[in-house]
Amino acid sequence: MQYNEKMFALGSRRSVIREIFEYSKRRSAEIGAQNVFDFSLGNPSVEPPKEISQAICDLLSEGDQTLLHGYTSAQGDAKVRGVIAQEITKRHGIDMPADLIYMTCGAAASLTITLRAICNEGDECVVFAPFFTEYRVFVENAGGTLVISKPQDKTFQADVADFESRITERTKAIILNSPNNPSGVVYSEETVRQICRVLKEKSAQYGHPIYLIADEPYRELVYDGIDVPYLMNHYENTFVCYSYSKSLSLPGERIGYIAVSPKMEDAKSLYLAICGAGRSLGYVCAPSLFQQVIARVQGAKVDVNVYRKNRDLLLSALTAYGYECVKPDGAFYLFVKALEEDATAFCERAKQHELLVVPCDDFGVTGYVRIAYCVDYGRIERALPAFSALAKEYGKQN
Amino acid sequence: MQYNEKMFALGSRRSVIREIFEYSKRRSAEIGAQNVFDFSLGNPSVEPPKEISQAICDLLSEGDQTLLHGYTSAQGDAKVRGVIAQEITKRHGIDMPADLIYMTCGAAASLTITLRAICNEGDECVVFAPFFTEYRVFVENAGGTLVISKPQDKTFQADVADFESRITERTKAIILNSPNNPSGVVYSEETVRQICRVLKEKSAQYGHPIYLIADEPYRELVYDGIDVPYLMNHYENTFVCYSYSKSLSLPGERIGYIAVSPKMEDAKSLYLAICGAGRSLGYVCAPSLFQQVIARVQGAKVDVNVYRKNRDLLLSALTAYGYECVKPDGAFYLFVKALEEDATAFCERAKQHELLVVPCDDFGVTGYVRIAYCVDYGRIERALPAFSALAKEYGKQN
Repeated sequence: MQYNEKMFALGSRRSVIREIFEYSKRRSAEIGAQNVFDFSLGNPSVEPPKEISQAICDLLSEGDQTLLHGYTSAQGDAKVRGVIAQEITKRHGIDMPADLIYMTCGAAASLTITLRAICNEGDECVVFAPFFTEYRVFVENAGGTLVISKPQDKTFQADVADFESRITERTKAIILNSPNNPSGVVYSEETVRQICRVLKEKSAQYGHPIYLIADEPYRELVYDGIDVPYLMNHYENTFVCYSYSKSLSLPGERIGYIAVSPKMEDAKSLYLAICGAGRSLGYVCAPSLFQQVIARVQGAKVDVNVYRKNRDLLLSALTAYGYECVKPDGAFYLFVKALEEDATAFCERAKQHELLVVPCDDFGVTGYVRIAYCVDYGRIERALPAFSALAKEYGKQN
Repeated sequence: MQYNEKMFALGSRRSVIREIFEYSKRRSAEIGAQNVFDFSLGNPSVEPPKEISQAICDLLSEGDQTLLHGYTSAQGDAKVRGVIAQEITKRHGIDMPADLIYMTCGAAASLTITLRAICNEGDECVVFAPFFTEYRVFVENAGGTLVISKPQDKTFQADVADFESRITERTKAIILNSPNNPSGVVYSEETVRQICRVLKEKSAQYGHPIYLIADEPYRELVYDGIDVPYLMNHYENTFVCYSYSKSLSLPGERIGYIAVSPKMEDAKSLYLAICGAGRSLGYVCAPSLFQQVIARVQGAKVDVNVYRKNRDLLLSALTAYGYECVKPDGAFYLFVKALEEDATAFCERAKQHELLVVPCDDFGVTGYVRIAYCVDYGRIERALPAFSALAKEYGKQN
């Protein structure tokens, strides 16, 4: 074969979100962007904290530019890793050494590197529906097979009994994404405890560790003071895959890290496997300027109130119109039951009202749509009459 | 297995260069950095052009920060790709469309993505010795096998007859790195013509294209007005893997691109396979700020004269001391014949004079060492007596 067919398929089969994105561009050209209510993309809409620009300017004026833009070691600048380790220690009470932190080009890199480090051909990775669609791509690239655990009805918390039934001798890892994309759900402390109990029992039963991969780009985006359990505190064999994309509105800069739990069995070997996987995948080092930037702005984060206001407006209005919504405790997505069985058909009908939302079949849950509310408040206000009219078409009282 | 053993081996088996780097740090602590003559690392020593800082400051003060640091499309910002395509068209007379440019996180990413896009399990990739050691890692990660073609004696140009004998039915691609790391050789127009003739004949013979991957991070670092042939002008099925790491002294920022020749058979499908490979490897997009930066500084480059002066001093002195050197036309490496058969033993002896240079066995050539002269001129001056003393130990007249 002239090229790799799997790669060709991945490159040419557009994702649903990408299709909607292209439609949105065309439609905006026809009727004006302000008249298209695009809620399809998870691109942060809140400005990065001012500390970011300041830190960049300081770094440019202070030091040796050759050093600033030079290679760091593959695992990241030692001082930067030290700052992050300290922050984890301080916030979560984990005694985290800098040499178990590996800087990455964002969450996707954190996940591909971790999966490549641990998986062998034929290993299984369990994810909780609804789940970020790219998990399938990343798991399969590592030679693994994706196994989907169904959620509880309505709450979309993990269904622990279902989860337990998905674990086999071949299970290498599970991925937990909290706050969740696309549901906005934060897995409760009780859910986390139950999941970790199962992991411990099954690891013992099968005689090998089952790793917990915590995918946490939305950790800082939570509302109403809710607490997101830190998984290393619940389970020893945990990798935390973090990204600053959402907490600092820097998704294009590709900066994040992997933290290997110091309590993990043979943590140092796992860390070395991560170093090897990063090397094998062509990640020479995480972008050097932004490594320095994030070390200087630890603790800074975007104004989450902007997203909370968006959520409150959308949630109260849609509920009033007769939609069944999952109340999001975090992230910037509203998970809404489609008003007919086929979510794709529902989204097509929404399009007639210039409403662009995403059917969630590819996220592993049918009959639901995702509304990304990381947009201007004004766009939500202008879109409400359209959501109302759409509900009326389906015979909802409002 | 608890983790992936190949990845563990890659992460734990330090490269020779890395070993020397660690030794250098220890030794510097003992006797002072100014007394250790470390020539092991290919980290640019010349300041980035002033235009870089200026472009960053302008971008920070001008526009919408959320957009500036936001996701670009996976293949890179459309305008940035347009600027690069225009530059290629202008400089090399290729009618290059923006939609065959794919922005990457640097040369290593360009190579891993291209190899993953084209290779299937068992494909062979031919490289010309001496070659950058990581080629083996990247080819094997793509499921391929590395095949090494021997160079000509003394000139270290490609040996075309040897190359021809390495091509089989399984050959999917060849990688050509000019100017070359570690030899500094620029493959001549005649060599390139012969290589491309073989590629055309063998593609016809085996009934499938053999791709040419041009790895060109050192393209701008050439001396004495020498011309580096642009491979798309010589062969249709060419991918150019470019990086700004060396031309702009930005190796830590991870910014480069893949250009697919518009004359390639089925170019659009190959481009889609590249998009798929990038997705599969977790490369969401190239760093967004630096995409914009490089679009603004097209044509800028570091002051190559600094490296030329270093080369001239080192080359004339070492030749006078009795070393046999390959005159580098580009890059910032001097390729020198070890004064005994075993290059590693020679490097150990050099260490006694505080000279840190790299044995090139892992680059596919025995009996040679690499001296990276991307260092302060002063370090070279201070090191010359040590090089002289080392030569005398081996009985050289000087």
